This record gives sequence, structure tokens and C-alpha cells, in this order.
Amino acid sequence: MKKFMNTAETMVAESVEGFVRAHEEFVVFGADRKCIRRRHLVPGKVAIISGGGAGHEPMHIGFVGRGMLDAACVGHIFTSPTPGQIVSAIEEADTGAGCLLLVKNYDGDVMNFEMAAEMVAGRHKIEMVLASDDIETTRAGDGRGRRGVAGTLITERLLGGAAEQGQSLAELKAIGDSLSSRIRSMGVALTGVAVPHTQRTTFTLGPNEIEMGVGIHGEPGHSRELFSDADTIINHLSEAIFYDISQSTDKALLLVNGLGGTPPAELYLAYNSALRIMEEHGVRIERSLVGTYATSLDMQGLSITLAFLTDEEFSLWDSPIATAALRWGC
Amino acid sequence: MKKFMNTAETMVAESVEGFVRAHEEFVVFGADRKCIRRRHLVPGKVAIISGGGAGHEPMHIGFVGRGMLDAACVGHIFTSPTPGQIVSAIEEADTGAGCLLLVKNYDGDVMNFEMAAEMVAGRHKIEMVLASDDIETTRAGDGRGRRGVAGTLITERLLGGAAEQGQSLAELKAIGDSLSSRIRSMGVALTGVAVPHTQRTTFTLGPNEIEMGVGIHGEPGHSRELFSDADTIINHLSEAIFYDISQSTDKALLLVNGLGGTPPAELYLAYNSALRIMEEHGVRIERSLVGTYATSLDMQGLSITLAFLTDEEFSLWDSPIATAALRWGC
Repeated sequence: MKKFMNTAETMVAESVEGFVRAHEEFVVFGADRKCIRRRHLVPGKVAIISGGGAGHEPMHIGFVGRGMLDAACVGHIFTSPTPGQIVSAIEEADTGAGCLLLVKNYDGDVMNFEMAAEMVAGRHKIEMVLASDDIETTRAGDGRGRRGVAGTLITERLLGGAAEQGQSLAELKAIGDSLSSRIRSMGVALTGVAVPHTQRTTFTLGPNEIEMGVGIHGEPGHSRELFSDADTIINHLSEAIFYDISQSTDKALLLVNGLGGTPPAELYLAYNSALRIMEEHGVRIERSLVGTYATSLDMQGLSITLAFLTDEEFSLWDSPIATAALRWGC
Repeated sequence: MKKFMNTAETMVAESVEGFVRAHEEFVVFGADRKCIRRRHLVPGKVAIISGGGAGHEPMHIGFVGRGMLDAACVGHIFTSPTPGQIVSAIEEADTGAGCLLLVKNYDGDVMNFEMAAEMVAGRHKIEMVLASDDIETTRAGDGRGRRGVAGTLITERLLGGAAEQGQSLAELKAIGDSLSSRIRSMGVALTGVAVPHTQRTTFTLGPNEIEMGVGIHGEPGHSRELFSDADTIINHLSEAIFYDISQSTDKALLLVNGLGGTPPAELYLAYNSALRIMEEHGVRIERSLVGTYATSLDMQGLSITLAFLTDEEFSLWDSPIATAALRWGC
């Protein structure tokens, strides 16, 4: 396991410090470095706050800035931030209009964000939206519902754009909840991923094996399959998404996300394949995003996300955004 | 060797097609798909043209757009584009003010770009600038001079910004040449890289080995060393850069570039280390860029680039740019 790191104990802190120093135009550390917050908060705007374990960068810290998140908390690798970190983010980012907490649907994250919300009750108005775009966990039938993966960034972006336009906490909560059935993702891994502090890989794949339906913490998927050509792999992911998604319109956003160790050239090839499949299904891909946005450390792999959006939601997607990972219109 | 691809023969074409379809806002294919050209050319502006082998994405196609390149040609993997492709790019992009060809200093690229320039002589005004930021090849002493690696994008960006401001072909040639001694890069690989059509890795590293001074085609570097902590590795790269660079000012741009298989979290950690070392040397890092910009297929590794720039050059860096890989100010 070779990674660019000094010690497993300091890895997250050093990486986040590098991130903040590289993007001082957009972000600052909150008090005691408990969160990363937008450099220029907007008084009277609802604050959008997210967070989760480290190891998924640029998610979520790369999305802090105008038009997306006001603050984000980073836990240890693959571990929820603490309630204390989340409380600090709320206190840093709330300028009076309340906070919307956008939480990926994992037990630890949900518990800690809920605990933080209770701790600030009476002092801050809080709503919570769960991101649950990963179809794999539903298929696994473990009863805990879908987890949040790369599709989370679409909800973060749309809520961030809507908050910037002055929408209220209740309106934002309604947008977030309504998106939940229309965003679906599925991932595939070509390699397992080694967690630095345990020095263990979550699963090991042979030279001709792939893990279909992998999670962003290296959770094994629903099937181990033979390595195949890109069209076959992308078709498998796409068909599973179509089976599970709620299709309200024929216009969609297509996100091809790298899991950390897959280079741009392969992501664009996969996008080309996914786009053709979506068009064969009669879906009009109105917007696209191809890149490395929600990672699982240095895993070789990718995920496909499809999101059926309304015209108003496409307008929110297009509205000005200035963050480290996404930037347009300003 | 697991990669997202269908066949080695179609890999580049499918990937480039995916790129163009994902970024139709910025780029279109030139005639017969011989080049990628900026969607909206600016009449009377000098055209900046680059290109090289595939396998380095997003370099160069990701830099086509306002404020950077007007056209780029993509060859086969790690192979120069043909003179015919380059001629086509010149014909597509020249709106009357001439073309500046920015060429990474490899024998094949230089030969083909020179041949293309001869083929259009009399019909198009042409100047050429060589990018030669990789210190490794000088140290190897093979007499062919430094190669162009990630630092090439800095020259592309500054020339693109200057061209957008209306500078003449002669002025742009002077800027490009004057940058050459002030931009230096060095890379390190944690893994070798497998080339799809040969199914061979250019070199193989043991579990505790790294390749210091690696090139972007998987050229072996000047030494194979024991894997170590990030600070030690980054210090080695940084010291080599300081030894070789021409330092005209104390203000610099620092680029930490991923070679394809290294995730953002590790790049930010490496940036944090590099930034500290640069500051200890009395260098003021005025601008930073951290990400995956010039790859060697899916190689795990990174490069550090330092560029000493003038205030005018920092202004060019900051000027509006709208490309797939770099975007700000518009």
C-alpha cells in the first residue's frame, strides 16, 4: 500500500490543511479547525451544511463556496464527523435564516447530525435532508435504505443554488426531499481500497475480477464479476439505475464520477458509453459532469449517476458557483 | 491490467469523443476529427495550438477554450499527432493573425510540428515555442534537453491569456521563450504504467520501491528509491527543482499534478508539504494549482512544478479562462 502520506494519524489533517491553503479564495477554517467554512458568508441566506468521513475528497470540502455549501465537516477516514464538529459548523455558518443539513444516509452520519441538531435546538432553525442515491444498498435488502454517494453533490449544488436565490428553509427542505427519488447512482471497482490506519484492504480482487455495486467506503457490491469491456460494465450499471429510478421527465443530468484511481481518459470513455445508453433509452442528457468528485481513497473504479431534473432545477444547476471543485458563471 | 476500455484500437477515439460531447459548450471537432478546436474562435487573435500523444488527459484537449488553446491534436497513446493533424489544426484555428505552436520537447512531437509548419509555410504565419520543464532529462545527460511535462500548461495558459489581450505573434513567441528557464517540474511514480496496445508496463516497481524523476510516458527516472513518507519524497523533488530553476523573483506559482491514479486527498497532502518547503526557501507562493492535469494513463504518482512569474504574468494567469479543465473569471 503506497500512498502519499506521512503518518496515518496526521493524514487527514495535513490533507485538509493543504486544501484550505490552496483555496483560500473560497474557504477558511472554522474555530479550532472543526469545520471548513465559506470565506464570505451571506447574511440572511439559509446555510447549507454537509460533511462526512475523510477519504471522499473533493466531497464535501471542495464544494464549499458561493452557490453550494456554506460549511463542511470532515471526520476521520470513512468515519462521521463528531456532533461537536457539526455544532461548530452550524454556529459558524448560520447567519439567522437557519441551516439545512445535507447528510449522506449512513448510520453514523445520520446519528451525529441528528445529535448536533438536538444540541442546537432552540438556538438555530434546522432542517435535514438525507442523500440516498446509491441503488446497491436497496438491492442488498439490509433494510437501512439507500446510502448517499456521488449523487449527493447534485442535491448539494441545487440546494446551494436555491439558497443563494433567497429560498426559505422550508422551501429548501421540500426541494431536497423531492430530489431523493430522482437521483440514482451505482459504482464499480476494479481494485479494493486499503485503509491507511488499518493497512487492510476492504476486499481483494483477482486480476480478472471486478466488484459491481461497490460503495464509497469500499463496501462490497452485490456481485463479483469477470472483468469485461467498458460498454458491458457501463451497460450493467445503467440498466440497474433505470430499474430503480423514478423517471418524471425525459431530461436528465449524467454524472460519471471517478473513485480516486481512475484517470480522466477512462472516465471520458465511460461517459461516451453511458451517454449512448441513456440516449438509447430516450433520455435527453441536458447537462453532464465527468470527473473525480466523490472518491473512495485511491480506488480504481467509477460510478454512474443519473438525475431527472425539472427546467427550474437545470436553472439552479447553471446558476453561478465558485468552489474549489465546481466553478462556473462567476 | 484493468482499465475502462473496449479495445486498444478504439480507446483514444472513444475517450476523445466522450470529452467533446461532455464539453460541447467549449469545443467542437475539427474537420475529419483531426483536431479539437475552440467552439467560438476570435477573429484577428493569434491562435495558440498544442497537442501530443493521448494518455495525458486532460492535457491538452481540456485546455481548449477561451483564454488558453484554440486547437489541440491528439495522437495515439504516447505518440505524436501526425503532421496532417497539425496542419488541419492550423487551418481550423488561424483567423489571420498567425499561429503559435506550443510543443512539448520530444523528438517525435518536435519533428511533426516542424513538418506541419513547413507544409503551411507561405499560407500561415507560424512561430513555435518548446516546453521543456522536466528537469530529469537534463540530469540524465542524454543531450536532448529537458522534456515538456505538467509545466507546459502554465505556458499554455499564459500565452492563451496574452493572445486574448491582442498580443502579436512575435510578442507571444517572446513570452513563451522567456518562460522556459523559469518553469521546472519533477515527477515521482509509485507504480509503473501499462500501455493498452502493448499490454506491457514500462517498468515494474516492488511494493517498497518508487521511481524518482519519472516522465509522463513512464520513462524511468534517475533513481529507484525506497518508498518513504510524503515529506521526504516531496523534499527530494523540491530540492532538485531549486537546483535547476532560474530564480528571477521570489514570487511563484506552485502546481501539484496527479499522474492519473493519485486521488485529490493525497495531492492536497503533497501540496501542503511542498508549500512548506517552498516557503522555507523564501519563495512566496502567489498562486496554486492542485489536481490531475497532465497524466501518464493511470499511473500512481505526482509531479511538482514551480514557476517564477512576473506580476504581468500573474495577471495573465488570473485573466478570464473557460476550458474543460480550468475555468475562472467568466
